[in-house]
Amino acid sequence: MNNVDGQEVLFPVVLPRELLEESGRYLSIGSELVRLKDRNEKGLVLAMTHEEAAVQLCKNSVSSYKQLPFMIYQIQTKFRDEARPRGGLIRVREFTMKDGYSFHNTQHDLEAYYERVYAAYERIFSRIGLKDFVSVKSDTGMMGGDIAHEFMSLTEVGEDEIVLCAKCGYRSNMEIAPAKHNYKNDKSGAPLKEIFTGELKEIGQICQGLKIKEEQTCKAVIFAVKGGDETVIAFARGDCEISEAKLKKVVKKDIVPWTGQDESIAAGNVGPVNLNVKKCTVVFDNSLTGASGLVCGANKSGYHLSGLDIERDVKVKEFFDIAKAKQGQQCSCGGTLKVERAIEIGNIFQLGVKYTKSMEMTVLDDNGKLQYPIMGCYGIGVGRALASVAQQSRDSKGLIWPAPIAPWKVHICALRTDDKVVSKKAHDLHDKLEKAGIPTLFDDRDASAGVKFADADLMGMPIRVVVSPKSLAADEIEISLRANGESKKTACKNAVKEIKATLKKLV
Amino acid sequence: MNNVDGQEVLFPVVLPRELLEESGRYLSIGSELVRLKDRNEKGLVLAMTHEEAAVQLCKNSVSSYKQLPFMIYQIQTKFRDEARPRGGLIRVREFTMKDGYSFHNTQHDLEAYYERVYAAYERIFSRIGLKDFVSVKSDTGMMGGDIAHEFMSLTEVGEDEIVLCAKCGYRSNMEIAPAKHNYKNDKSGAPLKEIFTGELKEIGQICQGLKIKEEQTCKAVIFAVKGGDETVIAFARGDCEISEAKLKKVVKKDIVPWTGQDESIAAGNVGPVNLNVKKCTVVFDNSLTGASGLVCGANKSGYHLSGLDIERDVKVKEFFDIAKAKQGQQCSCGGTLKVERAIEIGNIFQLGVKYTKSMEMTVLDDNGKLQYPIMGCYGIGVGRALASVAQQSRDSKGLIWPAPIAPWKVHICALRTDDKVVSKKAHDLHDKLEKAGIPTLFDDRDASAGVKFADADLMGMPIRVVVSPKSLAADEIEISLRANGESKKTACKNAVKEIKATLKKLV
Repeated sequence: MNNVDGQEVLFPVVLPRELLEESGRYLSIGSELVRLKDRNEKGLVLAMTHEEAAVQLCKNSVSSYKQLPFMIYQIQTKFRDEARPRGGLIRVREFTMKDGYSFHNTQHDLEAYYERVYAAYERIFSRIGLKDFVSVKSDTGMMGGDIAHEFMSLTEVGEDEIVLCAKCGYRSNMEIAPAKHNYKNDKSGAPLKEIFTGELKEIGQICQGLKIKEEQTCKAVIFAVKGGDETVIAFARGDCEISEAKLKKVVKKDIVPWTGQDESIAAGNVGPVNLNVKKCTVVFDNSLTGASGLVCGANKSGYHLSGLDIERDVKVKEFFDIAKAKQGQQCSCGGTLKVERAIEIGNIFQLGVKYTKSMEMTVLDDNGKLQYPIMGCYGIGVGRALASVAQQSRDSKGLIWPAPIAPWKVHICALRTDDKVVSKKAHDLHDKLEKAGIPTLFDDRDASAGVKFADADLMGMPIRVVVSPKSLAADEIEISLRANGESKKTACKNAVKEIKATLKKLV
Repeated sequence: MNNVDGQEVLFPVVLPRELLEESGRYLSIGSELVRLKDRNEKGLVLAMTHEEAAVQLCKNSVSSYKQLPFMIYQIQTKFRDEARPRGGLIRVREFTMKDGYSFHNTQHDLEAYYERVYAAYERIFSRIGLKDFVSVKSDTGMMGGDIAHEFMSLTEVGEDEIVLCAKCGYRSNMEIAPAKHNYKNDKSGAPLKEIFTGELKEIGQICQGLKIKEEQTCKAVIFAVKGGDETVIAFARGDCEISEAKLKKVVKKDIVPWTGQDESIAAGNVGPVNLNVKKCTVVFDNSLTGASGLVCGANKSGYHLSGLDIERDVKVKEFFDIAKAKQGQQCSCGGTLKVERAIEIGNIFQLGVKYTKSMEMTVLDDNGKLQYPIMGCYGIGVGRALASVAQQSRDSKGLIWPAPIAPWKVHICALRTDDKVVSKKAHDLHDKLEKAGIPTLFDDRDASAGVKFADADLMGMPIRVVVSPKSLAADEIEISLRANGESKKTACKNAVKEIKATLKKLV
């Protein structure tokens, strides 16, 4: 961050409610934002991110375009009241984040700086030892703004999905990857026909019962608009999955899965023909464009319709891209899309003037006119990045910490600590290494060599040093690398020098 | 902390309510503890300190006396909902604390370790550049336990008072310093007499009105017991100040200044004779032992009594030490007490088994019996320590940061940054110093030498380096010390070496 001209600051974990009211996020963010009160009943929040605090900090000390651009950053505790914390450090409520905020005179300047941070992020993730990571375009979500990228660590245990095309290099978060459909439609011109389906409600049951494929159905997914009594019904081919993020952008409302009771909605039998639900927005996915010969709900409990021809039977004004992209779909370049699981470890956003405008931060430009500075913001999930490295860098014996982020660079195993010479030599070496600025873990337990080696492998520090009566007899110690097991003996007097040289090759 | 065998950990800022319920502090701590709820209505708190979290962390991994002793510490954000935040970093609600927790098999072992940390704290505060600080015995307050010390930075703006004796070296927090009184009593044997005092209520008004000294009065201070309808009335000589901390220890209840309305209490006219207040505990201070010839309230609006003889007129079972010690009082050694204002920057506590017992953390001792580990805890207010250094280390031009804690060690003032040679040399020097691990602030603004020097003095980095067209003409730069203004010129090629050597002398 310093190398991209960042200046370190520290914001509070607890922010006054008013700050988020100014930006509008006090209302727009859901229950992930923890709201609390102090002893005087004054509203506070636990900060999820610090755009408002950054604007607040700068708005009183920055008044001229000459003071821009600059970037401030911090490494600090954040709290998000996640509905489903999981996976150790992957999705936790309290976590350490590196977050930075930049202020610019022009969009052009922001874009140039954004590129610099983008490159810095790639260097950071490489340097901490991540092997498989990609950056993808992403949804701006609660942050606002237009352009955003996520840095994703690829892993089968990831909770996010990303969409890749090997041919053209396209990379995107699932939330914004366009889905391109290629269905063959039944052209038989079969008429609409009501069929009794009884207790069959789920797409899987219908397909099994009627012996048809999922893509031969039109599914309905029902959402509730948050904080009201409206609903949104999304229709798509039965083999498509509705993307909440895409649907939100279309309806421009905050939606959640519908769990309500409404007699006008025949749940499990909802279809686009003769649909009659009050306060309801209906959205059709691109996958239904020109579709025919489909089975859909009859809006009547126990019944479906067959022979649905969208053009003939439903008046659809417009089709939207509201389905998730799928593995095997065609990329716009003609290549084939691949979907991979990943963990989001960083994200960068071009925020525009959302925060400076709502919080009235202005600077005088070179014509003496007031302008809202243009902002960018840049986050790294420190714990997630660490967990992602651990996920990728390991073997059957345990972790293999890359040296740049290993909590200790050297792990001394002193064998036979009851031996005074061993104990003294090991202690001396530990003290010398620490003094040389090399964090060193010292296993001085009264335990067997086997136990010590197994623990050293499990914990995975990059360099292991063995001090034993046997090696000391030859006035030597043994240095080995966790990553590849390579080992060598070194004269005691050269130990620190040799360890330093070994470490230098690793960082 | 590492040098006293500490191991670094990181606890959460937000803790589950249950943890503090186990120790009993969820109820015993007042409104400084912020209580909140998550999305599922589960109780949480913002941690003020982490004894419970430390016990929770260790109780599952420690089971044998062989694993003791050890100490864990963290440097982390704490939140206390202070009633009166003030003084910049001195009393804030959110602050950074270094807190450590040690676990021992025996009280003896705790005491020996406590001494080690005590010595380490003295080294730390000296090293960060505090000139005037003392350690004093202190009240254990909400922490529990018996023995505690505070480290106090002496300053006239401090909000704490400490009591010192130059003769015997006695040092104590005001809260526990015993007050030793030496009054001459009126032996005239004057009778009790009701006198009309009208609107005179305050001691000062009474003394002025009746032309007597404060010590010739018996004052009453009224407190309310928290969370109930009880009151506590403390009587003392009019020139004494009641110590809430001492009084709390006597009544063993949590008390706050009384602000209520109670017709049975004639506020401003409360006295010990014929006092008739319901649900009231009355406590007499040592200063009243054998006192006579005093003026006190008559428990009747508008009236006082003169000629009060405590032994004759009031049945006092026991006198207590509930007044604050005062400057000029006698120390038990015969010396004279001095009272100084100070800021608390650190504290250490011998906690005993309060937390391990209440939270059921046990280890097997060498006889195979379950024992509760004995704990110590050790805090440093990082921001307060910083503010205290700033308070002590300054002159009329600004701050003078001691090198060990200066945020930048070197401040480069590049004069005439439009001069390409100056700009290049200054940039090069900055980059070389940073690469050598010396944090360097670089003033590359387009501003005059006067502005730059004034700002450098104000900000107070220990070493100032001037790069100017004039000095560069002789292929030199100028190095000067903020503390004493000493300056010298050095050939450009030796700059980094010379700055390193200068810095080495300062840390």
